[in-house]
Amino acid sequence: MKLILGDKAYSTWSLRPWLILKRCGAEFEEVMIALNRPDTADQIARHAPAGKVPALEVEGVTVWDSLAIALWAEEHYPHARLWPVDPPARWVARSVVCEMHSAFGTLRNDLGMGPGHPMVGDPGEAHVPSDALSADIRRMVGMWKDAKGRFGEAGPYLFGDWSIADAFFTPVAARFRHFRIDLAAYGDDGTATEYCRTLLSQPDFLEWSEAGLKEIG
Amino acid sequence: MKLILGDKAYSTWSLRPWLILKRCGAEFEEVMIALNRPDTADQIARHAPAGKVPALEVEGVTVWDSLAIALWAEEHYPHARLWPVDPPARWVARSVVCEMHSAFGTLRNDLGMGPGHPMVGDPGEAHVPSDALSADIRRMVGMWKDAKGRFGEAGPYLFGDWSIADAFFTPVAARFRHFRIDLAAYGDDGTATEYCRTLLSQPDFLEWSEAGLKEIG
Repeated sequence: MKLILGDKAYSTWSLRPWLILKRCGAEFEEVMIALNRPDTADQIARHAPAGKVPALEVEGVTVWDSLAIALWAEEHYPHARLWPVDPPARWVARSVVCEMHSAFGTLRNDLGMGPGHPMVGDPGEAHVPSDALSADIRRMVGMWKDAKGRFGEAGPYLFGDWSIADAFFTPVAARFRHFRIDLAAYGDDGTATEYCRTLLSQPDFLEWSEAGLKEIG
Repeated sequence: MKLILGDKAYSTWSLRPWLILKRCGAEFEEVMIALNRPDTADQIARHAPAGKVPALEVEGVTVWDSLAIALWAEEHYPHARLWPVDPPARWVARSVVCEMHSAFGTLRNDLGMGPGHPMVGDPGEAHVPSDALSADIRRMVGMWKDAKGRFGEAGPYLFGDWSIADAFFTPVAARFRHFRIDLAAYGDDGTATEYCRTLLSQPDFLEWSEAGLKEIG
């Protein structure tokens, strides 16, 4: 089984399935494709039909897209409990993950990770959000507070125990850290800030970060 | 159980869970919210925390996002076989659905449905695609040909039997029809054109279309 990834310093979408496979205890080989290079598109096209990382090569099939890989892992590692066990929590967990998957375009664009803006290491310069970005941040904070308040009392993660939702929001926490976004200015009562701290101190993310820091020297 | 929808003439994302719930034989009430009106945002906010349709109100919980509703339906109606039974076909079906869910932004934008551009009824004026849109169309055609060729020989749908993938691509077929996109110009050997015809003649889509035509008089 091979996971095709972009740079660990920059590839937010690659981080998600990597965290999920780690959590499942899966054994997999990593195939790193350096982003932002002249031959990046050619390199990716050799592995991933959609022309994007991440992709998973398994049993002779390529599974692409971070969420499709997450659903593949859910199917293969039921013991890992990748979604919350409680049905309403599970349905809402899927809703927030799907919203992250299809929306928040301004957040992903304006708080973009790339050369000079790694998702690992110390914070960079503060970013002053536009109105559109402020709306995205406010929605993120509101969504986290709602989920944590309704379903996340029993543990440090968004739905208590670790779930696919936490994999999906870890890169968001890294963006907020790098661009020094103070969530209190966007409706946070401390819940979202604490949640980001939890995500950024997960042992698996620290392992990813260390590799990312090595990439950028 | 209530499905919160936008206009049937225009709301491409609403069509998807509606087709899926129909296919499951689910009994549900429809709550229609007219889009493109001054009070649309307020009306949606009363039902859907993300501020978008569709949303599903079920057992006291709101499930939002078309894909999250699809996954809810998969869980509740296993007999409906919403994903292909063959594992590799299922993994690839999830990949194409997830790619549709997060990408094809140019296609959705340039071939936008809204007043004057309904996804029901006769074709409108031809649209001349930009290079970016051409790339999206070419990818869509390539993805369909690949899936149909590898997994869809046993039936008329993308993976043979009907699946969530067909729900996700029905609005795309409606866009191509309305804007008179000739898929042969984008690498189609007839497979994609025939697939669009299949999607647009599904009885459930014809029922939806009839209601959409009534809306726009």
